[in-house]
Amino acid sequence: MNTLKSFVQDQWVEGREPFATLVNPSTEEPLARTSTNGIDMGAAVDHARAHGASLREMTFAQRGELLKAWSKALHEKRDELLGLAMQNGGNTRGDAKFDVDGAIATLAHYAELGAQLGSLKALRDGEAVQLGRTARYAGLHLWVPRDGVAVHINAFNFPAWGTAEKAACALLAGMPVVSKPATSTALVAFRLAEIGAGVLPRGTFQFLCGSPGELLDRLGPQDVVAFTGSSQTAARLREQLGRRGARLNVEADSLNAAVLGPDVEPGSATWDLFVADVVRDMTQKAGQKCTAIRRIFVAGDRLPAVQEALVDRLSQVRVGDTARAETTMGPVSTADQLRDVRAGIDKLASESQRVFEGKISESKGYFVPPTLLLARDAAAAKVMHKDEVFGPVATLAAASDAAGLVRRGGGGLVCSVYSDDRDFLRKCVLDVAPYHGRIYIGSEKVAGQTLGPGTVLPQLLHGGPGHAGGGEELGSLRGLQLYSQRVALQGDRALLDAIAPEKS
Amino acid sequence: MNTLKSFVQDQWVEGREPFATLVNPSTEEPLARTSTNGIDMGAAVDHARAHGASLREMTFAQRGELLKAWSKALHEKRDELLGLAMQNGGNTRGDAKFDVDGAIATLAHYAELGAQLGSLKALRDGEAVQLGRTARYAGLHLWVPRDGVAVHINAFNFPAWGTAEKAACALLAGMPVVSKPATSTALVAFRLAEIGAGVLPRGTFQFLCGSPGELLDRLGPQDVVAFTGSSQTAARLREQLGRRGARLNVEADSLNAAVLGPDVEPGSATWDLFVADVVRDMTQKAGQKCTAIRRIFVAGDRLPAVQEALVDRLSQVRVGDTARAETTMGPVSTADQLRDVRAGIDKLASESQRVFEGKISESKGYFVPPTLLLARDAAAAKVMHKDEVFGPVATLAAASDAAGLVRRGGGGLVCSVYSDDRDFLRKCVLDVAPYHGRIYIGSEKVAGQTLGPGTVLPQLLHGGPGHAGGGEELGSLRGLQLYSQRVALQGDRALLDAIAPEKS
Repeated sequence: MNTLKSFVQDQWVEGREPFATLVNPSTEEPLARTSTNGIDMGAAVDHARAHGASLREMTFAQRGELLKAWSKALHEKRDELLGLAMQNGGNTRGDAKFDVDGAIATLAHYAELGAQLGSLKALRDGEAVQLGRTARYAGLHLWVPRDGVAVHINAFNFPAWGTAEKAACALLAGMPVVSKPATSTALVAFRLAEIGAGVLPRGTFQFLCGSPGELLDRLGPQDVVAFTGSSQTAARLREQLGRRGARLNVEADSLNAAVLGPDVEPGSATWDLFVADVVRDMTQKAGQKCTAIRRIFVAGDRLPAVQEALVDRLSQVRVGDTARAETTMGPVSTADQLRDVRAGIDKLASESQRVFEGKISESKGYFVPPTLLLARDAAAAKVMHKDEVFGPVATLAAASDAAGLVRRGGGGLVCSVYSDDRDFLRKCVLDVAPYHGRIYIGSEKVAGQTLGPGTVLPQLLHGGPGHAGGGEELGSLRGLQLYSQRVALQGDRALLDAIAPEKS
Repeated sequence: MNTLKSFVQDQWVEGREPFATLVNPSTEEPLARTSTNGIDMGAAVDHARAHGASLREMTFAQRGELLKAWSKALHEKRDELLGLAMQNGGNTRGDAKFDVDGAIATLAHYAELGAQLGSLKALRDGEAVQLGRTARYAGLHLWVPRDGVAVHINAFNFPAWGTAEKAACALLAGMPVVSKPATSTALVAFRLAEIGAGVLPRGTFQFLCGSPGELLDRLGPQDVVAFTGSSQTAARLREQLGRRGARLNVEADSLNAAVLGPDVEPGSATWDLFVADVVRDMTQKAGQKCTAIRRIFVAGDRLPAVQEALVDRLSQVRVGDTARAETTMGPVSTADQLRDVRAGIDKLASESQRVFEGKISESKGYFVPPTLLLARDAAAAKVMHKDEVFGPVATLAAASDAAGLVRRGGGGLVCSVYSDDRDFLRKCVLDVAPYHGRIYIGSEKVAGQTLGPGTVLPQLLHGGPGHAGGGEELGSLRGLQLYSQRVALQGDRALLDAIAPEKS
């Protein structure tokens, strides 16, 4: 069996026993094995630290060139990457594109931002301001790269995009990266790293194909950890890294809600957009997106029509081995996920009714049927607002106070609101805004050109408060802030301009 | 003896036994007593939460009006406040002005920002961007007020300014405040709160005159705690609030350094600025400023001349009861501080030599003589880079690699660099930038108009990475970010503009 390697100190190295086995979740066939056991994590951190200066001394344009080269190299291997994602991730070809093309596009987006920033090495935050009697004495704020290492801990659901979006922000900001994929779906991340290692300069990118071991115990106040995963792991990291003073960004559980406004008529463009978005989010990647809609709130009196429309669409989903062309939804990624999702559905069903459950004809694999639940009383319900069931599952409910129900999720990555009524939208959006990192407004005029709330765009923030972890990634240049220190400079305006030029 | 009260649920209430006693640190005479024992902290949090909406529904201009009224009301009581600061804080009249005028000016600064923002209720972050094929499908980022309570835990050294600067940012951002001063110097904060309670609307400001009790156990993910104090307490808060998901801003210990460039000639304007800034920082408020210079690095060969100039100036400092007009430096604030500062100096002296120690003729009070130490070997030293001795004390050292030594402090609030050499400045400033929240550049052209590195201006960030706690306060509108959620909105551009107008 193929043994995956890690890339540490610019060498490809193999871990020792015990190995974890990567499988095809459609067939349960083993695909490869990996381990980081025996790898010197301290040496990896030291190596990154020793090479940080080479990145910081580059201009944004030069850092952007690295991302462009990586993006191009991935594009050249796109078909191979799609194939690996289908095998190891249980992805349909569409799911695989969503992950792999997302990686390529996000790297390209940050490459382009680098090109625009040109010869600068640090970003100004706002305008310079006068501080003294004369304009000569001034102050300005600057984002400078942190003098440490960026450790990336990615989730199993987006091995390509997760690795690339985190690395793009850190590298453009000027921080060297140590990247760790989820072991179960590491095949795609491994290939992405192999390709990256071919274009990125010495020491700027390392890859740990498995457990991080004692890596995090090597970190200090100038280092950054960006973590995507469960709330439980996040809580442990918070304690561990809090003690060490390292900065931590968390993207965790999220009970993303979709709200249908009372004005939306069945058959209207906004209605159709709503139905298409909900069904896409429930079934794309078998519902394994942190941004997928988990709760559906119908603010008017159209609950029966919504239920009918969703059930009709969900009935058309064909679940099965993604190697078959007719399959429109694959399995969840691992046996553990299968167990967790099944248990999660049972728990949800304690306060709701199953109104749709799809069919599965496979005898092997980690398949979960698309499942729609109808809450008995969403205001009284607890599980639906608390437990993220990471599969093709959502709970539908009538809502007299939709914003109040949305907020019961305790903070999420994205909320989608479908309406063409400005007053409804203004109130609903502002009511839920403090509880979200992103709000997607589905309306008639944009129905033809959106990709749905589940698609994370590099231009907009990704992250959310509270339950969702309190982190922020992407958002174009905002994504660099995690890897930067904001520092105020005060003094003679001419000296400030010499130290930190405003324009390239 | 006067018993100070707390302002909870819009009522002035007295705590129960046991009481803490506030004293005059020059004379050790008791001044007042206070306790929060028996006060219902849960009710305080609920009351703030219940009144948050009234602030969020105000425009920035309306919130600014509140700050303006408070600032004006304080200005009218300025002499009384200065008197209280001199009594309870061991402040000279100059020290007291620094604190009280700082409070009045910071409130006025934020009042003015509110007026400029006019009828807006939430701030845009950057420009809107096109997301789809047409300009109609757009995205923008918005800072919206968090739907919780802002808890402020202030330090003993700035009872007026600390209370006001935190409250200014939170109230302008749209969050109700529960403010807690350090007990030992609470007399000024109490009066400030009394005056504030007279002008601020119901539920928007509460004041706990003593221990916070179980207040923090009532907080959740939409709440914010802004803490100024020791690293030890910060570590406890990090754990406690991390579990509860509340956002925490820490401003803790800082080994602020001053660097004298090799180009600076004795007697030049830059030299004089450097000497004046160092001596001011060592003696103003008896060295009890988080931003005070603790380490002095001489990058050229002028160490003997620097030492002579500092000793000459320090010899002129007159330490004593601040009730006497000739006094230029008062005591430290408490008996505990006196003990800690004396112990800290002894520890510093294990790796340095005392080259100056001032005289004290008082028989009572918590007086520490101004003390200048000379490091035997700053590169080998440990204590000077690690222990913040919060009194009129600094350590001087020759430095071949000044930036390297500055960074040994592990992250600070402010670093000051004195030079007129652009190349030296560019390298030194950028080398230390990731380790600081603010860098002050002292040069010939601004020598006549700066207030020194120890003065925190509302226009510039206050806070620092690593050892300094990793927080950010002030910096004009940046100070509102702590109390806001940044949220991306995506959809029809016309709808976005209706929900969140760009301009007032």
